[in-house]
Amino acid sequence: MHDRHPAAARPIAVLASEVPPRTKRSNYPEHIAVRFAGREKRALGDLFGLSNFGVNLTRLAPRASSALRHAHEKQDELVYVLRGTPTLYTDEGPTRLAPGMCAGFKAGSGNAHRLVNESDEEVEYLEIGDRTPGDVASYPDDDLCAQQDESGAWRFTRKDGTPY
Amino acid sequence: MHDRHPAAARPIAVLASEVPPRTKRSNYPEHIAVRFAGREKRALGDLFGLSNFGVNLTRLAPRASSALRHAHEKQDELVYVLRGTPTLYTDEGPTRLAPGMCAGFKAGSGNAHRLVNESDEEVEYLEIGDRTPGDVASYPDDDLCAQQDESGAWRFTRKDGTPY
Repeated sequence: MHDRHPAAARPIAVLASEVPPRTKRSNYPEHIAVRFAGREKRALGDLFGLSNFGVNLTRLAPRASSALRHAHEKQDELVYVLRGTPTLYTDEGPTRLAPGMCAGFKAGSGNAHRLVNESDEEVEYLEIGDRTPGDVASYPDDDLCAQQDESGAWRFTRKDGTPY
Repeated sequence: MHDRHPAAARPIAVLASEVPPRTKRSNYPEHIAVRFAGREKRALGDLFGLSNFGVNLTRLAPRASSALRHAHEKQDELVYVLRGTPTLYTDEGPTRLAPGMCAGFKAGSGNAHRLVNESDEEVEYLEIGDRTPGDVASYPDDDLCAQQDESGAWRFTRKDGTPY
């Protein structure tokens, strides 16, 4: 992958809220990506040249969600809520979170997750995920399947394997 | 590694401050570990069975520090400050941090880091590090060298290779 933050350009430290949001707003196919207009991600780890895991500062406007509900086969994830009260959806149903709460999603568990902002206030959280190659994401609630290719890019198909 | 948090016992979400602190307070040799009495770590990722990276909620009492200043060869690290104003020491010298600030430490850069609480208020931050095996940590300011063995445990020696 092209390193957009070579060593010489890396900051010592930054105020996370001042990092410019990611310009590519979503990896999803376009007809799904439009559903994530209220989601904004600031890539904190990338800024320091980190490659083993990513850390994003993510904001969800009221009614926005983090993702389609999904489970990873290889990559662990963890979210830590900084502001607001997102609702976490897993196989166990909804769980209302609050600032200072965290939830982890072990790869390979099959238990799919997503956060939805069902409140009228903005939500802000840190999301952490590693970059173990060759990951697959499954989507129990949507006709979608995702596989990472050798470059780390996600390839989305319908569940029958046909492309979007 | 023994999984102290099997799938059936994993919570959906937790308030991070209510997670019991790690009972093993330090991996350092005992004569160094005593210098880290004012440091308290809550292992958030482990609680959810995550194994690809660790996320700790770490508190530093006034005068306490995160670690000896060190650089990893293989494992990336990132810290995100939640509370207080820790001072980050790197090869560039001291940088005062504040809530909402983050700093990332790319493995292999050789630039060593640590946080010191030089304030009179408690400091709280999230620290994230991946678990790429076979890591080596170097300590420019101390007569210490650390290597991970096959089980992931750290082995500390003096710089001339003799054990403590």
